[in-house]
Amino acid sequence: MRCDVLAVGTELLLGQIIDTNSSWLGEHLALHGVDSLSQVKVGDNIGRITGHLRRMITEADAVIMCGGLGPTHDDLTREAIAAVMGVDLVLDEDVADVIRHLFSSRNRAMPENNLRQAMVPVGATIIPQTRGTAPGLICPVTVDTPEGPVERVIYAVPGVPHELRDMFDRGILPDLQRRSGEQWTIASRTLRTWGESESGLNERLDDVIAELDLVGNPTLAFLASGWEGLKVRLTARAETREAAEIVLAPWEAKIRSILGHQVFGIDNDTMESVVLSLLDDLGWSLGVAESVTGGLVAGRLTGVPGASRVFRGGIVSYASEVKFDLLDVPEGPVVTEEAALAMAHGVRRLLDADAGLALTGVAGPAEQDGMRPGTLFAAVVHPGAEGLVERAVHIRLPGDRDTMRQLSVISALDLLRRSVTGSL
Amino acid sequence: MRCDVLAVGTELLLGQIIDTNSSWLGEHLALHGVDSLSQVKVGDNIGRITGHLRRMITEADAVIMCGGLGPTHDDLTREAIAAVMGVDLVLDEDVADVIRHLFSSRNRAMPENNLRQAMVPVGATIIPQTRGTAPGLICPVTVDTPEGPVERVIYAVPGVPHELRDMFDRGILPDLQRRSGEQWTIASRTLRTWGESESGLNERLDDVIAELDLVGNPTLAFLASGWEGLKVRLTARAETREAAEIVLAPWEAKIRSILGHQVFGIDNDTMESVVLSLLDDLGWSLGVAESVTGGLVAGRLTGVPGASRVFRGGIVSYASEVKFDLLDVPEGPVVTEEAALAMAHGVRRLLDADAGLALTGVAGPAEQDGMRPGTLFAAVVHPGAEGLVERAVHIRLPGDRDTMRQLSVISALDLLRRSVTGSL
Repeated sequence: MRCDVLAVGTELLLGQIIDTNSSWLGEHLALHGVDSLSQVKVGDNIGRITGHLRRMITEADAVIMCGGLGPTHDDLTREAIAAVMGVDLVLDEDVADVIRHLFSSRNRAMPENNLRQAMVPVGATIIPQTRGTAPGLICPVTVDTPEGPVERVIYAVPGVPHELRDMFDRGILPDLQRRSGEQWTIASRTLRTWGESESGLNERLDDVIAELDLVGNPTLAFLASGWEGLKVRLTARAETREAAEIVLAPWEAKIRSILGHQVFGIDNDTMESVVLSLLDDLGWSLGVAESVTGGLVAGRLTGVPGASRVFRGGIVSYASEVKFDLLDVPEGPVVTEEAALAMAHGVRRLLDADAGLALTGVAGPAEQDGMRPGTLFAAVVHPGAEGLVERAVHIRLPGDRDTMRQLSVISALDLLRRSVTGSL
Repeated sequence: MRCDVLAVGTELLLGQIIDTNSSWLGEHLALHGVDSLSQVKVGDNIGRITGHLRRMITEADAVIMCGGLGPTHDDLTREAIAAVMGVDLVLDEDVADVIRHLFSSRNRAMPENNLRQAMVPVGATIIPQTRGTAPGLICPVTVDTPEGPVERVIYAVPGVPHELRDMFDRGILPDLQRRSGEQWTIASRTLRTWGESESGLNERLDDVIAELDLVGNPTLAFLASGWEGLKVRLTARAETREAAEIVLAPWEAKIRSILGHQVFGIDNDTMESVVLSLLDDLGWSLGVAESVTGGLVAGRLTGVPGASRVFRGGIVSYASEVKFDLLDVPEGPVVTEEAALAMAHGVRRLLDADAGLALTGVAGPAEQDGMRPGTLFAAVVHPGAEGLVERAVHIRLPGDRDTMRQLSVISALDLLRRSVTGSL
C-alpha cells in the first residue's frame, strides 16, 4: 500500500510555516506498514494543486491532502478533489449545521463564507470535525491504469496539526487498513541511548542489524537527536498489538544486553526525567552549579512537571567571583576538574541538597584559562555506602557554542545517572 | 524566474528529519524575487528521483536538489542529474584532492567510497566545498519545450543546513541572478517586536499595510516566533542594494514611529542580546533569580557570546526554602509581586550585581499558592537617577508548561529593557 502526501498552502512554500505535517504522516504511515514515497508542497493555485493531485493519484494507492480546507477563496482543496473526481461540490446540510452551531454557541455571527467548509464532492464521505470547523474528506476516485480502471482514494484533512493527527487516527488509518485488507497492527519501542556516536552504535549492533535484515520484522532505525541523545527504534508488525509486542521483546532484550548502561530510558523518557525519577526513588534532592551551560541544566530539569520533588535549585556561577564567593571554589583557574568538584560540593552545601552536579567549561568562541572551546569538566557529589561519592569527568565536545552547551547538558546529567546507578 | 526544490532522502519521508531546507530556500528565493511553486520530497530511489527531476525541470526554470550528495550507495543525486542531462559522471581530480586532503589533515584513512563525492556530471560546474566533503553542483540541462529546446539549470547542494545555506548564497543565488538577467537586488529589515499579538500589530499597522499594498515595494510580512518575539519584516527591491535601502528607510521609520518601544531590535538582534548590550553600555552587571523559568533566562543570556561582560550569574531558587534562605524572601506565599521584588533585591545583593531581575510564577500543570498556571510575576531592581529603581509586573501568559516558561523569559527580559530605557 502506498500513500503519498500533498501539502497545500503558499505559506509553506514561502517558509512562513514549516511543513511538519507530511513528516508526521510519513512517520505514522510507515509505522503502520504503509509506504509514503513522495510528498509534495504546492501553493494555493487551483491549476497546480489539481495537476499534482491528478499525477499523484496515478502513482500511489492513496493521497492525503493537508490544508486548503478553510473558509476563504484561497482554500482550494475541495475544488481540486472535485475536479479530479469529475464531480460537483454540494452543500452537506449536516456539516453546515455543525458549523452554524459552533458560531451560535459562541454567540458569534457566522460569516457566510464559512459554509464553503460544508461543501463536499459528490461521492465523498465525511470525517466529522471535533475541534475546528472543517471536516475531513474521504474521496474515492476511479483511475485509469494500463490494467484497466482501479479505485483509489484521496483524503483531505485540515493543516492544523492537532486536527490533522486526530483525523488521521480516527478516519484515515481505519479506512486505509480496510482498503489494504490487512489485519496487522504495529508496536514500537524506542531505546534512548547516550555515550556513543551513531556509527559506533551501528558497529556494535552490526550482528543484530544483519539478523534483522534477514528476518524483516521487527525493523530497526537510528535517530540522532542532539541533546535528546540517540534513539534506537524497533518496530514490529503482527495481527494483534499483543503479538507485535511479543515479536519486539527478545530483540529489545538483545539490544539492551549489547548496549548495557548506554540505554538510559525508553520511548518518551528523557535524560532529565530519568535522572529526576532515579533521585526521587532514592529520596534524594539535587542542586546544580553551572558555568558553561549558564542555567540550561536547571532549565531542562525544571521542564519536567513535578521536578520540585527532587530539584531544589541551581547556582549559575558565570563570573569567577561567584564561584569563589558563593561556592567556595579555590581561587585560580576555573576550567579544571578541581573547580568542577568544588562547585558540586559547594552547591550541595549551599542549597542543602543530597546530591550536587556541576559543570564548568569553554563554549567558545574564545579560549578560557588556556582551554579550547569544547572543553567540559563535569562533577557529581552524592551519598554512597561509605560516605560521599565524588566523581569528575573531562569531556571534549564538538560543535559551535550552542551545540557544545547542549551536549554538555546531557553529558553532565548522564554522569549523574551513571554515578548514582553504579554504572560508571 | 521559477525555481522549484527537490529534497532527497528516505529519512525525510519517514519523518526522521523534518525538511526545513526547502522552507528556507523558498523563503530566500522569494526574498530575491524568485518564485518557488512546488517543492517535493522523495526517497533514495534512483527511478523516483530521476522521474521527479525530469518532470520538475520541464515546469520550472531551475530546480534545487538538496541532499543525496554523500559518499554511500544511497546517495543518488549525482546519478539522477547525469541521467536527466544525458551525460556521464567523471572524477573531478581537484575535488578528489580536496577530499583526500581533508582526511589526511585529520590523520584519518579515507574510505575509498568518499571519492564518489568527487564524481561530477560532464558539463557541470562546481560550487567548492568549504566545510563538508561534498561540493555543490551547477548543472545546465537542455529541455525540449513546445517552443523548442531551452537551457535550464539543476543545482545540487548537501542536505546539511549550514552547508546548503552557504552554497546557496555563494553559488546558487549569483547564478540564478545572472540567468534571470535581472539587475535588481533586495534589502530587508526585520523589526523585532514584543508586547502585542499579531492581530494587534496588524491593526495598528492597518494604514501602512494599505499603503504598501498600493505601492507594492517594499513588502511587509509578520512572523510570530514564540519567545523570539514577533518579527515585522520589510523587503525592498531595487537596482542596487543602496537604492533598496533608500526604498526601505522611510517605511521603517514610519513603522517605528507607530510601534514605538515595542520595537526592541532589528534583524539578528535578540531580546537577550539587546538587554546585554544596553547594560554593557551603562557599565552595569546583572544577576537573575528564577523560579518558574528554572534557569531558562540565565541559559538564554549566556547563549550570547561575551555575556560575561555583563552577566554575573543566577540563582535558580526553585524550592521555596532557597528563596527564603538564600535570597531573603520573606516566608509566606512565593507567587506574588512582593516575592518577585524580594528575589530581585536578593540576587542583586548576593551576586554583587548592579541590576537584579527575578521571575516567580506557575507553569502548571497544577496550581500553586492558589495561582493558576500561566501566572507570572517579574521584577527588576537597578540604579536610577534618585537611588534604586524597582518595578514589578503581573502577567497572564497562555500555553502549556513549555510555552508559558518561554514567554516568561522574553516578558521578563523586556521588563528589564523597558525599565532601563525608561519606556515602561
